[in-house]
Amino acid sequence: MRHTETVEVRGHILDSGLFARVLDDVLEYGGDYRIDRLDVGRTHTDESYVKLTVSADETEQLERILMRLQTHGANQIDPGTATVRAATADGVFPDDFYSTTNLDTRVRLGDTWVWVANPEMDCGIVVDADGARTIPVSDVHAGDMVVCGADGVKVVPLPSRVREDPNEPNFEFMSSEVSSEKPQALLVRQVADQMRQVRQRGHKILWVGGPAIVHTGAAPALVALIENGFVDVLFAGNALATHDIEAALFGTSLGVDLDRGHGVPHGHEHHIRAINRVRACGSIAGAVERGVLRSGVMHAMVTHGKEFVLVGSVRDDGPLPDVHTDVIEGQRAMRAALPGVGFVIMMATMLHSIATGNMLPASIPLVSVDINPATVTKLADRGSAHATGVITDIGLFCEQLASELVVGYKRG
Amino acid sequence: MRHTETVEVRGHILDSGLFARVLDDVLEYGGDYRIDRLDVGRTHTDESYVKLTVSADETEQLERILMRLQTHGANQIDPGTATVRAATADGVFPDDFYSTTNLDTRVRLGDTWVWVANPEMDCGIVVDADGARTIPVSDVHAGDMVVCGADGVKVVPLPSRVREDPNEPNFEFMSSEVSSEKPQALLVRQVADQMRQVRQRGHKILWVGGPAIVHTGAAPALVALIENGFVDVLFAGNALATHDIEAALFGTSLGVDLDRGHGVPHGHEHHIRAINRVRACGSIAGAVERGVLRSGVMHAMVTHGKEFVLVGSVRDDGPLPDVHTDVIEGQRAMRAALPGVGFVIMMATMLHSIATGNMLPASIPLVSVDINPATVTKLADRGSAHATGVITDIGLFCEQLASELVVGYKRG
Amino acid sequence: MRHTETVEVRGHILDSGLFARVLDDVLEYGGDYRIDRLDVGRTHTDESYVKLTVSADETEQLERILMRLQTHGANQIDPGTATVRAATADGVFPDDFYSTTNLDTRVRLGDTWVWVANPEMDCGIVVDADGARTIPVSDVHAGDMVVCGADGVKVVPLPSRVREDPNEPNFEFMSSEVSSEKPQALLVRQVADQMRQVRQRGHKILWVGGPAIVHTGAAPALVALIENGFVDVLFAGNALATHDIEAALFGTSLGVDLDRGHGVPHGHEHHIRAINRVRACGSIAGAVERGVLRSGVMHAMVTHGKEFVLVGSVRDDGPLPDVHTDVIEGQRAMRAALPGVGFVIMMATMLHSIATGNMLPASIPLVSVDINPATVTKLADRGSAHATGVITDIGLFCEQLASELVVGYKRG
Amino acid sequence: MRHTETVEVRGHILDSGLFARVLDDVLEYGGDYRIDRLDVGRTHTDESYVKLTVSADETEQLERILMRLQTHGANQIDPGTATVRAATADGVFPDDFYSTTNLDTRVRLGDTWVWVANPEMDCGIVVDADGARTIPVSDVHAGDMVVCGADGVKVVPLPSRVREDPNEPNFEFMSSEVSSEKPQALLVRQVADQMRQVRQRGHKILWVGGPAIVHTGAAPALVALIENGFVDVLFAGNALATHDIEAALFGTSLGVDLDRGHGVPHGHEHHIRAINRVRACGSIAGAVERGVLRSGVMHAMVTHGKEFVLVGSVRDDGPLPDVHTDVIEGQRAMRAALPGVGFVIMMATMLHSIATGNMLPASIPLVSVDINPATVTKLADRGSAHATGVITDIGLFCEQLASELVVGYKRG
Repeated sequence: MRHTETVEVRGHILDSGLFARVLDDVLEYGGDYRIDRLDVGRTHTDESYVKLTVSADETEQLERILMRLQTHGANQIDPGTATVRAATADGVFPDDFYSTTNLDTRVRLGDTWVWVANPEMDCGIVVDADGARTIPVSDVHAGDMVVCGADGVKVVPLPSRVREDPNEPNFEFMSSEVSSEKPQALLVRQVADQMRQVRQRGHKILWVGGPAIVHTGAAPALVALIENGFVDVLFAGNALATHDIEAALFGTSLGVDLDRGHGVPHGHEHHIRAINRVRACGSIAGAVERGVLRSGVMHAMVTHGKEFVLVGSVRDDGPLPDVHTDVIEGQRAMRAALPGVGFVIMMATMLHSIATGNMLPASIPLVSVDINPATVTKLADRGSAHATGVITDIGLFCEQLASELVVGYKRG
Repeated sequence: MRHTETVEVRGHILDSGLFARVLDDVLEYGGDYRIDRLDVGRTHTDESYVKLTVSADETEQLERILMRLQTHGANQIDPGTATVRAATADGVFPDDFYSTTNLDTRVRLGDTWVWVANPEMDCGIVVDADGARTIPVSDVHAGDMVVCGADGVKVVPLPSRVREDPNEPNFEFMSSEVSSEKPQALLVRQVADQMRQVRQRGHKILWVGGPAIVHTGAAPALVALIENGFVDVLFAGNALATHDIEAALFGTSLGVDLDRGHGVPHGHEHHIRAINRVRACGSIAGAVERGVLRSGVMHAMVTHGKEFVLVGSVRDDGPLPDVHTDVIEGQRAMRAALPGVGFVIMMATMLHSIATGNMLPASIPLVSVDINPATVTKLADRGSAHATGVITDIGLFCEQLASELVVGYKRG
Repeated sequence: MRHTETVEVRGHILDSGLFARVLDDVLEYGGDYRIDRLDVGRTHTDESYVKLTVSADETEQLERILMRLQTHGANQIDPGTATVRAATADGVFPDDFYSTTNLDTRVRLGDTWVWVANPEMDCGIVVDADGARTIPVSDVHAGDMVVCGADGVKVVPLPSRVREDPNEPNFEFMSSEVSSEKPQALLVRQVADQMRQVRQRGHKILWVGGPAIVHTGAAPALVALIENGFVDVLFAGNALATHDIEAALFGTSLGVDLDRGHGVPHGHEHHIRAINRVRACGSIAGAVERGVLRSGVMHAMVTHGKEFVLVGSVRDDGPLPDVHTDVIEGQRAMRAALPGVGFVIMMATMLHSIATGNMLPASIPLVSVDINPATVTKLADRGSAHATGVITDIGLFCEQLASELVVGYKRG
Repeated sequence: MRHTETVEVRGHILDSGLFARVLDDVLEYGGDYRIDRLDVGRTHTDESYVKLTVSADETEQLERILMRLQTHGANQIDPGTATVRAATADGVFPDDFYSTTNLDTRVRLGDTWVWVANPEMDCGIVVDADGARTIPVSDVHAGDMVVCGADGVKVVPLPSRVREDPNEPNFEFMSSEVSSEKPQALLVRQVADQMRQVRQRGHKILWVGGPAIVHTGAAPALVALIENGFVDVLFAGNALATHDIEAALFGTSLGVDLDRGHGVPHGHEHHIRAINRVRACGSIAGAVERGVLRSGVMHAMVTHGKEFVLVGSVRDDGPLPDVHTDVIEGQRAMRAALPGVGFVIMMATMLHSIATGNMLPASIPLVSVDINPATVTKLADRGSAHATGVITDIGLFCEQLASELVVGYKRG
């Protein structure tokens, strides 16, 4: 017997390629489709509408297809009511749990639709007296009521990237169909405009950074941006903070490494001495208080009262005392710092950029800047409406960004 | 006042470039040198000897230069006796602790020289009734006696890579001056010879692997190598195990990602379902026992009783229940698995390869295989005598390696 | 006043993303569209049909949009009759010449539609008593009759990549939606199957190769493939032939370079000596005849009577006497060797691969193999229905390809 | 019987690693050595001196080793007198011709040492009544007297890169041991200082550029640099000029490609129309005269009377009428433009950068700027004392360079 379900999707699905992806995914998941209705937006500003019937040999397979299509904003015509089942053990979802997208999502509990708090990919949805919210598998407890299957769930597709949208003038560079010229210098200006607007709206700017910020000499520019209020939160690993502090403590010796270009040769022990000194102070803030740490990015974050979350990795030396050595604890700390964030800029770190991208709602614009195309591509693929990748030199990028945003900025 | 100390180094220091690096490092660390004596090995099989006086403006700076030179095997002529001081807090070394190399090292305690157990970079040396051993900063306890300064420490330089050493025929490909031809197919054969010899000597073979092993279709070859005793220990992250298990549980659907080439698009929820099922079983071994997991790399490791250490990262989903979420605990588990390892092969993972490279003694040969030159270069730089990098396709590499080592190996 | 024209396109345009690209290009070229009709293929095996009216402010702009859309197979509903104008000078087309795609194309001359010979991108169409054919701008003569504007031209879109097409079983790996597993070893087998079939059909196999074939030790495998009839034509530059001949003439010394990995350090003069010796013989064939050249790829090509076209570049030393130093002459020689070619394999050369890709009809399948993703991506973008890119090690790839195709192949 | 010869080399050969390379090359070429004397420079500002006897089984092999060692400045103690033999055919050297380095070279003809004009790698040395000069193999004529073997030739090693040389303050960034910080922004300033000085000395600045200059939006900055006298000569291919002219002629449409990031999709016919229009004008200058070309890089070069040499490649469309389609003719045109050049900046083109690097004397400083590390590494390897590589974004690099050099520069 063949199992079927009818789904619909509306929006700029033709010229965005979304429609093609919906059809493609049905086939890739081993199902089949029949297009029941297609109302074409006649011009490029009109929305289109499509209704299609999806079929599969088994219920479980059909369920998986339906959950998949929701990532594209394709919802069941008759979504029914959410099935909710209790988790039977800590850290384990029911087998057929609904796996979330990073899009705004509603679930129907009884007769009412409720919004799911904290849209995040690859999570489950827990329902309790307060409503519904996403939860990563590591945080679910036995007895938590978890949404299962695709019934009773609706996902709101992102607004398509329409050309010349007069309401979003500053986001236009983020789409891929833009203007008649796309010099990197213009991109910097557009990022600067973005940051000013985000700040005016009272939202936070989150930076995610790797140690290349220090190695390419971008630290002074970043310090100027911190001092002028363009860095509210910083996510990083042990390496960025360590090399920044090493530069502050051992001055010239950092030159040795900077000088060699990419990466820091091992056996060069200054970084481990820097770590040891901060450990002796108990924390980075402690090192600032005692006068051990007197300059650099971390110093600026501490003295301006900005929040930072450092999460460790298996290749870390030390680490610094502020580093979360438990990565799941680290993820929790990162999630806790997200509320209020309205713009994310990621710089020269694949590991922490992907970690952050994994937990961001699709609605938060992000810019990923790296000289390595692989990092940028991975982020741009994640299906945010407002994600852009800039393949460029982060040293020059930060320098120009500081020149745009900080009046009188002049490299010392 | 100028502080000076005299050091010496012996070996194939001229043609290996080691001598140039010693002089270079003195200057880079802000010191100066005077060559007191240079006995030149007249032919390329003779060793040379150099004695040089190093000077610096401050004692601390001189100490740092001396410690640095030891990484090249340049030791003080009159090393004196080791200074040992107690750590005053958990997780903190005395400020002038001796920072280790990954070379064989001795310390003079009173009148006797004792070997330092477990040579590892960027550690301290703890001395107690049992002798001396390296310790990472995170594991030192208040009251531990730690070697400080460079006095009383001697480092044994690695045997240089001399051409045509008749005693090491199979290592010859590892040097960079090799034979008249260097096709990748020959390299595979030489790695295979290495593995056979390591096994004959009763040493263990350690694999360090990334998820690309699964994505490039190398898993069946790796399973054959496990079944035939060429994989004793496996270090990896959550991703390798997850995608391997996803392939075993969801068959065709993995094709979706493999097919797309590099990396797995997010939002594709099969991997999170795979993780959830294994979490429900309590462990990977539990999933094998219950018949949930019936094929693949992790299945083979479990059924053949091989040890694996999985250490998580901040970008992980889940993770699998076997994954160390605390990276420092993970490092400890990796260190505990190192004794007996005689050969390391690293495959397509920068994070775990560097983590492993950080804790390996320089004397253990390692091969790093990756299609990404950056990974290979970083490993080859780490100053092991027997490190080689192979920039190649790991799918084809594993396929040919299995053909060499496993009689009758034929891809299914 | 607004200028309009109505075009139509039929095929698997929805799930292939073609429809999205048509709409996108209209807007990118500054025009606008209205969808007049859209007949949707209900299932994934049905074709769809769309009719849309394109508009622009100026005739010239509209013409350019229409010509652009033809690259996607979107033709004017009422194509009219071709406008033909005489070129007024050698090497110059009329200003509004029709710029060709690499798809099969027809032009209406008077009442009849005639096929355009030699489909090739970025050419003009010359019409004479023999019919119509593409011509590069460098080859047009004053007085040649050239098709102008988009009227009277129809382009045949490529068959879409439909899943599970039972008639093309061996091409399936070339699409991007393939099977449940995509190991590189399987890809090699599929390329081997392709080559056998092409040979059975009596078509030629064209190789386009770079010097890395020699550097990665792939030359013996390529020689075996030549000897067994799997290389009919070879396109290359001065470098492949030079390093191959250098290896044959100076044996061990090539090891110096192979050994260093990527590329040949300059100042290493053996290659210039090799070139000089062949110049003394008048040609590569002359060097074979005189017994100067006795092994290697070029030797095998000569002794088996296979055609090769070597085209020089500005970075060449020498060059070898067989090298076309005039690149336009070189392009002519390449074009002359294309008739009969039924399969193209490109290996580790961006320059000659793109040159070849530029002149190939879209209907000829091609495989581009390189360890550098950039090369592969550029080729895969060129809009051939049967183009695939393999990012892998060419040394191991050739080795396995020879093992598949040559009975008893065993590296010496 | 064993053939031997004694050579000597003087300079900063220990800390520069040069000595290690000399010994290495003897062994790599199958010879052996004995160190006869080594006078060590005691401090880092003293020069060292080494005398060593090189041996080989055959005369020819020994000759090759001796010629090789000259690339490191190691000359025969008793160089004898140059052997000179007539070329017997056009375009062919005698078999044992002396293959040149790019270092300053002298030959002893009879009793006198004469300097060789135009040091260039991989050439021969022709001697006539006017003295001695390098000649590429393609330009030698039957009867030309060519230096053979290594006798009677002396090569002057480059001054070593010594730290803190007070006479070369602005070159210091070019070495690899530099300052305590190496931000890209500082590099830009140092390149700017270089350019000012070169101009003050009355030397020419040569730019070698690829089409990415246009694609990254660097063209306006380059135009400003041309207008202000910082571009005397431009070497490029068909692509840079074509895309620059396409941008000038078709304005917005270039945006299409810029927008897509790397490279220009084929089938986009505007570039071929641009080429056709310039062909109709006879030359780029003709297009400027007729008012067809009114802006951009090529327009600025023409209107400011600057020299440019465009050399084609096999992948070119068109090409533009100014392009040398014969690459050997192109090389000749490039060589003819070199006299007076005192500084070379290479930007985003591997092909033309290597071509230029091949013909430059080692004494001319060059900077290679590219976002692709491969290009930069290849150039930096070529053994110039004053070569530096900058891996960065050329769009931002040119923008900052123009800001440094052009008063009031502000992007339009």
